[in-house]
Amino acid sequence: MSHTSDTAQFSTKGAYVHSGEEFDRDTSYIEDRIVADPDAVRASDGPTGGTIGNPNGGLGDGAKAWPVEAGRYRLVAARACPWANRAIIVRRLLGLEDAISLGLPGPTHDARSWTFDLDPDGRDPVLGTERLQENYFKRFPDYPRGITVPAMVDEASGAVVTNDYPQMTLDFSTEWKDFHRDGAPDLLPADKLDQMQPVIKRIYTEVNNGVYRCGFAGSQEAYNAAYDRLWAAMDWLEERLTNQRYLMGDSITEADVRLFTTLARFDAVYHGHFKCNRNKLSEMPALWGYARDLFQTPGFGDTTDFVQIKQHYYIVHEDINPTRIVPQGPDLSGWLTEHGREALGGSPFGNGTAPGPVRESERVIPGHNPLYPA
Amino acid sequence: MSHTSDTAQFSTKGAYVHSGEEFDRDTSYIEDRIVADPDAVRASDGPTGGTIGNPNGGLGDGAKAWPVEAGRYRLVAARACPWANRAIIVRRLLGLEDAISLGLPGPTHDARSWTFDLDPDGRDPVLGTERLQENYFKRFPDYPRGITVPAMVDEASGAVVTNDYPQMTLDFSTEWKDFHRDGAPDLLPADKLDQMQPVIKRIYTEVNNGVYRCGFAGSQEAYNAAYDRLWAAMDWLEERLTNQRYLMGDSITEADVRLFTTLARFDAVYHGHFKCNRNKLSEMPALWGYARDLFQTPGFGDTTDFVQIKQHYYIVHEDINPTRIVPQGPDLSGWLTEHGREALGGSPFGNGTAPGPVRESERVIPGHNPLYPA
Repeated sequence: MSHTSDTAQFSTKGAYVHSGEEFDRDTSYIEDRIVADPDAVRASDGPTGGTIGNPNGGLGDGAKAWPVEAGRYRLVAARACPWANRAIIVRRLLGLEDAISLGLPGPTHDARSWTFDLDPDGRDPVLGTERLQENYFKRFPDYPRGITVPAMVDEASGAVVTNDYPQMTLDFSTEWKDFHRDGAPDLLPADKLDQMQPVIKRIYTEVNNGVYRCGFAGSQEAYNAAYDRLWAAMDWLEERLTNQRYLMGDSITEADVRLFTTLARFDAVYHGHFKCNRNKLSEMPALWGYARDLFQTPGFGDTTDFVQIKQHYYIVHEDINPTRIVPQGPDLSGWLTEHGREALGGSPFGNGTAPGPVRESERVIPGHNPLYPA
Repeated sequence: MSHTSDTAQFSTKGAYVHSGEEFDRDTSYIEDRIVADPDAVRASDGPTGGTIGNPNGGLGDGAKAWPVEAGRYRLVAARACPWANRAIIVRRLLGLEDAISLGLPGPTHDARSWTFDLDPDGRDPVLGTERLQENYFKRFPDYPRGITVPAMVDEASGAVVTNDYPQMTLDFSTEWKDFHRDGAPDLLPADKLDQMQPVIKRIYTEVNNGVYRCGFAGSQEAYNAAYDRLWAAMDWLEERLTNQRYLMGDSITEADVRLFTTLARFDAVYHGHFKCNRNKLSEMPALWGYARDLFQTPGFGDTTDFVQIKQHYYIVHEDINPTRIVPQGPDLSGWLTEHGREALGGSPFGNGTAPGPVRESERVIPGHNPLYPA
């Protein structure tokens, strides 16, 4: 089984929209895994995990199992990217900061690669590379696909281990358990997995990817169909979250992380840039309350960089926004307003606790998020 | 004095945005006037009117005065265009439908001209032309400027008389008085003109034209400056309309007509397409109440075609929206919700009365406006 890990898919510059076609996400990538017991996974005859119902899973054809080891791997994750933002959130919720380091490429990229343009001298301070593409080439010298984030990189060799983002966060929960902080929440509660699987699948196809289907539609007909699919799913979520604090009940799970990163980008980007404009998120009472509740919970809002998010989409997708001008709006102050969701009960971290403050070196740039005024 | 009458300014296709430049509206056009007493206007040494403080005005250099005459002229006005929409509203408020006929080009145009593509056989039923450009050429065979709406056309010759839109609505009020319906409102009350002049000027430069300054900005710096100017003016209007029902007090004036046509397009187009996205209009309590109050008043909402509005901007401005895909949103049902503005007192038509129902032949297409469900 394979998924995409990509907001980019930039085999050629400016080719996000293909005239007359529906958007069809490339869902192939490096399916290696980093696991607690490589021998056990190698022996398994299951497919790669990647499903909530079977988070431990197996290993895909030709894929390798790498050992979990603190200090060995670097998560390279642009804050702009919703798929990468998931990994940043889960790493922080579980307290994996000491075990897995974090590299942060800037918000934009060219036709070749995400770049470390925010770092001193334009190089990742640990990997020493200017472009994430170099790290893909260290793994496969002729790597032919998009250079995507998130990627787990072997620090010693500089080679990308995996860019399989849905498996990555599942493995953070299940394979890295020995390195979780005290009080780390259980994002994959065993008694919820069967119900979580269809929810997470629908969120992926209809919402996470649904906004891209709207924005990259190559015809009016494809857009119209994509818009209707998206809003059918948004209405389903609005209803689901009206009397329930989180997607799977009283506590945060992997499903909430996956929905949040799309909701955080909704009014800032998808509403206008991708024409997902039936309503703003802020006009959907339950979803907006839910999104603010998460935003104000440690691990979510404090990993969100609205400036980088807007720069990414509006500057990179030149075929949708040829001027590459980045909007100043929307007003983001609403993210900090009272949401009243505590009245629904529940406890965000279940039997666990909230993560502590964000470490200094990983803080969102002041002014890029209403939590951190300029 | 001259103004533009143009949403188009299409000397070349796709040249709405000029890289590195601020948007600068072309403000030259045919300054002829249609007046009650041509000899008196010819003898005046004043400039063309066009100012609220001096609505009768004079005649510009080289401009002609044409006589007011029922059944002689045709107002050609695309519903999509905010400058044309003004003329449609004023004609209806004053009851000039029998005196001045109405031609309705479709929402889009090519690099050459607005076209009568909505009419049977693609020809205006009175003028017999396919393109409004033909009517400009009947006046000036080598007419070099943009083919703009609104235009007043002499039906017998098919020649454009004037496309001077700010003067046009003033002349409807002052020069066509003999043909006003009983109960026509006074849109230019003499005791308000001095105060109205700066209001209307600020609305023009900061809002009517301000949204275009955002959308057609040729650099991030020009856009940022345009956005700040627009929202400073929107905040001024929000405050002005918080305790006052209409812009000049208790009754509708020309100033309200001029603001309304921009507000009606705000969430449907300017918010996303022109990146005027600090807030939706619907997030500005006083302005949104005011806009709904007008929308629900005969003459305003019943002349507004949201489908044509969206088609115009998203299809014509190919350099901003290369896919030419027209968004399905926003949800427009809110336009019909209660606005509560009656509590501020006042009377929309002052000592006058509301216009009657829209005549059958001039109704907005069902489904194009929440007043007329499909």
